[in-house]
Amino acid sequence: MIDFEALLKVSYGLYIVCSGNKDKGNGFISNSVFQVTAEPAKFAVCCNKENFTANLIKESKAFSLSVLQKETPAALIGRFGFKSGKDIDKLQESDVIFGKTGVPIVLNETIAYLECLLVDTFDVGTHLIFIGELVQAEILDDKKDP
Amino acid sequence: MIDFEALLKVSYGLYIVCSGNKDKGNGFISNSVFQVTAEPAKFAVCCNKENFTANLIKESKAFSLSVLQKETPAALIGRFGFKSGKDIDKLQESDVIFGKTGVPIVLNETIAYLECLLVDTFDVGTHLIFIGELVQAEILDDKKDP
Repeated sequence: MIDFEALLKVSYGLYIVCSGNKDKGNGFISNSVFQVTAEPAKFAVCCNKENFTANLIKESKAFSLSVLQKETPAALIGRFGFKSGKDIDKLQESDVIFGKTGVPIVLNETIAYLECLLVDTFDVGTHLIFIGELVQAEILDDKKDP
Repeated sequence: MIDFEALLKVSYGLYIVCSGNKDKGNGFISNSVFQVTAEPAKFAVCCNKENFTANLIKESKAFSLSVLQKETPAALIGRFGFKSGKDIDKLQESDVIFGKTGVPIVLNETIAYLECLLVDTFDVGTHLIFIGELVQAEILDDKKDP
């Protein structure tokens, strides 16, 4: 299902980008997410090459984007933003579902989520830009601001 | 000159993206601008292939980003957002300087500007992602919000 209202939540904000699968999944906090085309709907995520999740995106060729609400507690941001998936299992402590592509989707503090199939990867030096085509989008809470 | 404070203005907001030169220049309104790497500082701009300025960026291999203040009048947004440079000379009615690379930089309602050399172009379907390396950045007004 693609809820186009969910796309409007992507304009500005903070996201948890997840990839991998049930056995090996991980996510990280990003504000470098933006829509690049409308037809079909494609999203760009910019990610450091050293990032643990970057390697999962390359392997599983899909990722999810959870749009966090404005009042997201620092603890959640800390878990996903300042710790590496190499060291801890971030998803074990989180409320997670698995998408059509098998990638984990974090639901904590999430007002909308998007799931994308990887269609391109661009190298910009220290970082990679992953381009994903939307396969699923859902609004979970329409009352809170991103 | 690179004022790193100017980079902080890029996180969210509305931009005028300009390219070309003194004889043939143009600009358009975009919110699809984001920083992709820190060392060196590189920025991504996403742009429809039909966009007049997209062709100027390809030709002149440089672009400028003017970060607009929050209270930018609708007339300026209208001029750069809803008219094509094929039909009118948008820059003639604007307050413009020319950067190191020769590209026009719009100063109207601008709180900071950045000038970038094109280092990569990625095709994402209906749109192109231009990657530019920062050559100049300046804050013009530190009191207004982007």
